[in-house]
Amino acid sequence: MTDFPTYDDVIAAHERIAPYIHRTPVLTSSYINSLAGAELFFKCENFQKAGAFKARGASNAVFGLTDEQAAKGVATHSSGNHGTCLSYAAGRRGIPCTVVMPRTAPQAKKDAVRGYGGRVVECEPSTSSREAVFAEVVAETGAEFVHPYNDLRVITGQATCSRELMEQVEGLTSVVAPIGGGGMVSGTCLTLSTIAPKVKIYAAEPEQADDAYRSFKAGYIIADDAPETVADGLKVPLKENTWHYVQNHVTDILTASEEEIVEAMKLIWKRMKIVMEPSSAVPLATILKNKEIFAGQRIGVIITGGNVDLDKLPWNV
Amino acid sequence: MTDFPTYDDVIAAHERIAPYIHRTPVLTSSYINSLAGAELFFKCENFQKAGAFKARGASNAVFGLTDEQAAKGVATHSSGNHGTCLSYAAGRRGIPCTVVMPRTAPQAKKDAVRGYGGRVVECEPSTSSREAVFAEVVAETGAEFVHPYNDLRVITGQATCSRELMEQVEGLTSVVAPIGGGGMVSGTCLTLSTIAPKVKIYAAEPEQADDAYRSFKAGYIIADDAPETVADGLKVPLKENTWHYVQNHVTDILTASEEEIVEAMKLIWKRMKIVMEPSSAVPLATILKNKEIFAGQRIGVIITGGNVDLDKLPWNV
Repeated sequence: MTDFPTYDDVIAAHERIAPYIHRTPVLTSSYINSLAGAELFFKCENFQKAGAFKARGASNAVFGLTDEQAAKGVATHSSGNHGTCLSYAAGRRGIPCTVVMPRTAPQAKKDAVRGYGGRVVECEPSTSSREAVFAEVVAETGAEFVHPYNDLRVITGQATCSRELMEQVEGLTSVVAPIGGGGMVSGTCLTLSTIAPKVKIYAAEPEQADDAYRSFKAGYIIADDAPETVADGLKVPLKENTWHYVQNHVTDILTASEEEIVEAMKLIWKRMKIVMEPSSAVPLATILKNKEIFAGQRIGVIITGGNVDLDKLPWNV
Repeated sequence: MTDFPTYDDVIAAHERIAPYIHRTPVLTSSYINSLAGAELFFKCENFQKAGAFKARGASNAVFGLTDEQAAKGVATHSSGNHGTCLSYAAGRRGIPCTVVMPRTAPQAKKDAVRGYGGRVVECEPSTSSREAVFAEVVAETGAEFVHPYNDLRVITGQATCSRELMEQVEGLTSVVAPIGGGGMVSGTCLTLSTIAPKVKIYAAEPEQADDAYRSFKAGYIIADDAPETVADGLKVPLKENTWHYVQNHVTDILTASEEEIVEAMKLIWKRMKIVMEPSSAVPLATILKNKEIFAGQRIGVIITGGNVDLDKLPWNV
């Protein structure tokens, strides 16, 4: 049986990573509150190091390694923020980092990994190629595998985000976070189930990649093959460790259409003057769509990241 | 002779407007610091009420009126942030506000004035029409004219921005602010000349609208007729009161090309994850262009506003 982390592990993680992450601000918008009929507190992980909350989990994994482990470096497969953030954390510790990415991944993502000193190894855009190439990398380097979300060290690192949020805002009644593989949601469950068990946890997902929603309703993990959504951080499926948290601690999973996501994203950019990713807009989209659930509440909303291609904004394509 | 405000007036203004404005945050970027070879402290007035520093000056003018004056309302001509911010301030006091705007002004700017309860009166896009229509509005309403930048109440309000900046950051050696009509620069001069006279004040201007630069070099006000620049907040000329401050307290005026401005804007969006206007990018553009002036300094950079048309970003047109 898996030995899941405790809240003491979250506190230890927070001390471990504190020198390498920002305590990100919580922003509010009276205009958006009036639209929602509730008080929203946006935890702005778009301002996080390397532009995403994943710097927390990656730093916890990297700085928790023994010197012997660290000498061989870390490796992962990710075409998104986890690869960039793992490269960032490895760079801070001064150890090698290899990220396996499909050769079709955006150039900007490859550049971001390299910008922090990591090495990109390209594979074909298929699961079988990724697994084969990744196995080679590990065999060759002996690097420690840090999974983007199913890794318990990563989940424990992400859990520090809602710990800060609870210190920054009093009297929250709900927290809403986007769900892809479930790393942020699992971290939120880990923290809140101990320090604020009455606070409801909602996961927000694109309708077009609603595998977590269907898993939650079915009672077992359902994984989709390559769903398409503007919220490109949320395409991956749950895995056993994140499923554990979702199944046990999430109140409900809510979904939003592509149009609702883009509209919520633009609303946040326009009114709050912050740059954030489409994935980060899914919580607000679901809140505005389900006003009856949230009316009058004090809601924490996780803005997960800010790494967006400014040349391809979703309302300009 | 004009009776210019003192720093005591700035302190009084700050108390007067405190309930209606944000104490905006100061952000930094280690990446941009490494590019500049200096430490930059960005004072983020893009997060200000109504999206621009002009909420400070407008609030000071509006809340400084006697009840008799206030009953007749306020009026201005502006197709930019001042109109929106005056409407915001008037709305907070619950008094009428009329903004004269060219009928060709962007719909979003008209909507913004109306969104805060103000009235838009359209004129033809010419100085003569604007003056004639504005005179009618004042004759009809008896409203108090609040000029966008030459009004000393407005300058005194803007001066509260650098007062906060000096409280928020220790050891600044320079402050760089964009210059259009000169309201923000004048406010900065008013504050710094009293509380930090050794801090150098640089004004940053688009090459394509460099009338303040040429005025500064010539020693008298030069006004251009309808210059064209992406930094659309900086097209207006100096007037006698702002010229007084620029002439006496500004160390130098630096200019940047359209391309440099857009590049600096994109750099800030990408690295700092904030939405700000092209005008607000001119200071960074001039700092990166004049590294020899700023090397090793601690520089305050005023991000003046965040009201940008997300459908027409300058790198997408």
